[in-house]
Amino acid sequence: MLSKARIAEIRSLQQKKFRNIEKRFVAEGSKLVLELLDSYFEVAYVVASPEWLADNNKHIPEGIERLQASRSDLERISGLTSAPEAIAVFQIPEYDFDVAELVKKWSIVLDDIRDPGNMGTIIRIADWFGIDSIICSPESAEVWNPKVVQATMGSIKRVRIFEKNLPEFFELVGKEKEVPIYGTFLQGDSLNETSFGKSGMLVIGNESHGISPAVEAYINQKITIPAFAHSSTKQGKAESLNAAVATAIIAAAIRR
Amino acid sequence: MLSKARIAEIRSLQQKKFRNIEKRFVAEGSKLVLELLDSYFEVAYVVASPEWLADNNKHIPEGIERLQASRSDLERISGLTSAPEAIAVFQIPEYDFDVAELVKKWSIVLDDIRDPGNMGTIIRIADWFGIDSIICSPESAEVWNPKVVQATMGSIKRVRIFEKNLPEFFELVGKEKEVPIYGTFLQGDSLNETSFGKSGMLVIGNESHGISPAVEAYINQKITIPAFAHSSTKQGKAESLNAAVATAIIAAAIRR
Repeated sequence: MLSKARIAEIRSLQQKKFRNIEKRFVAEGSKLVLELLDSYFEVAYVVASPEWLADNNKHIPEGIERLQASRSDLERISGLTSAPEAIAVFQIPEYDFDVAELVKKWSIVLDDIRDPGNMGTIIRIADWFGIDSIICSPESAEVWNPKVVQATMGSIKRVRIFEKNLPEFFELVGKEKEVPIYGTFLQGDSLNETSFGKSGMLVIGNESHGISPAVEAYINQKITIPAFAHSSTKQGKAESLNAAVATAIIAAAIRR
Repeated sequence: MLSKARIAEIRSLQQKKFRNIEKRFVAEGSKLVLELLDSYFEVAYVVASPEWLADNNKHIPEGIERLQASRSDLERISGLTSAPEAIAVFQIPEYDFDVAELVKKWSIVLDDIRDPGNMGTIIRIADWFGIDSIICSPESAEVWNPKVVQATMGSIKRVRIFEKNLPEFFELVGKEKEVPIYGTFLQGDSLNETSFGKSGMLVIGNESHGISPAVEAYINQKITIPAFAHSSTKQGKAESLNAAVATAIIAAAIRR
């Protein structure tokens, strides 16, 4: 059964403050819970309907608490608009941060991506294109925010996210190796004429303000995604692309 | 001043039923309102703070009602979480539907895109890549939904959206011309080895179920966006990409 203390704990994990203290995060929904149970993430306990627990017992490691919950309890503890069948609490993993390893591959750097949906979608894109490290500025959406975890659709188990002061990070990188650091700007080399190597960094800027001047200073390859003029209308053109959309287009070009 | 009748009307336009009856839609926020005032859209009236009206008077056509509103009135009529400075009501435009013209260019076909944010983002992507027609199934998110209009960031003025029964639409297309109709599937020709011509149709499927069998029957070019395996983790890979993200990657390839 679900105690009041557990209800309070799960609800508190909707807030960053308590995630930081508890070093735990929440995953909601049958599909996502099963995805993350099938990973290196350490599960603390699982809360679900009796039917779900019976059906999925074999996916939960031995010795881990299984808490039966009524529909109304699930509604009370859920951050979603409609109550999920299952909710699980996991330990926030700690990753080794190894710049020497990082510079051998591709990674994505996020300069203040504020929207949790964008953050989650970018993690999913990174996963699709086999980019397993993301470095994000402290002002970016927090990765263990349930909305981010949800939007990754499980990709969060295959992509490691590091929160770093970006200028300090680029200083470390520079000491290690000369790495191509790409960023998108309205004025830059056309993406269609850019060829990418086996390693590098792709910097994505804030949804409203783009890449900050402090980060721009480290970018050595400015690129632009070419727009295409409308043939029939003469009413200008779109000013920009969504941050996740830009990430996807460039990641696809990198892996072409 | 803002009458109770006006307040009721604007609020009612948050609902599809009343948009259909009134043939009007709402745009919120200074930037979006100014974007759409600078278009062929016919504005019905503008509601804004006295300061905004004074600053932007020249952008509102002569003879159009300007309604001053207090902050609390703007809060009451807004569908956004924080009240905008300006709200405008526009007539829903009617476009000529000309299949013979359509098949000469690229267009995007949406098979039950349900999420308003996805719909808006796809319109913005179409605009960026100069694709000015979108055909969507009746079950797709309605384009004049304020959340869609918002997410287009003004691109809605450069892209025409037609709601059609898709099998009937493809039958019409087939009578006109043999057109390449592309759709993404897990099994298909690699996008990286596909070359695109000057015209065609790109079909994007529903967020959960992909392209429906009734629509799949009309697709003559099945393509897949190649994923890239992670080098370090061995935990499978992302199952799919977000619908808007897939649209962006393929649109970029079409215009390369």
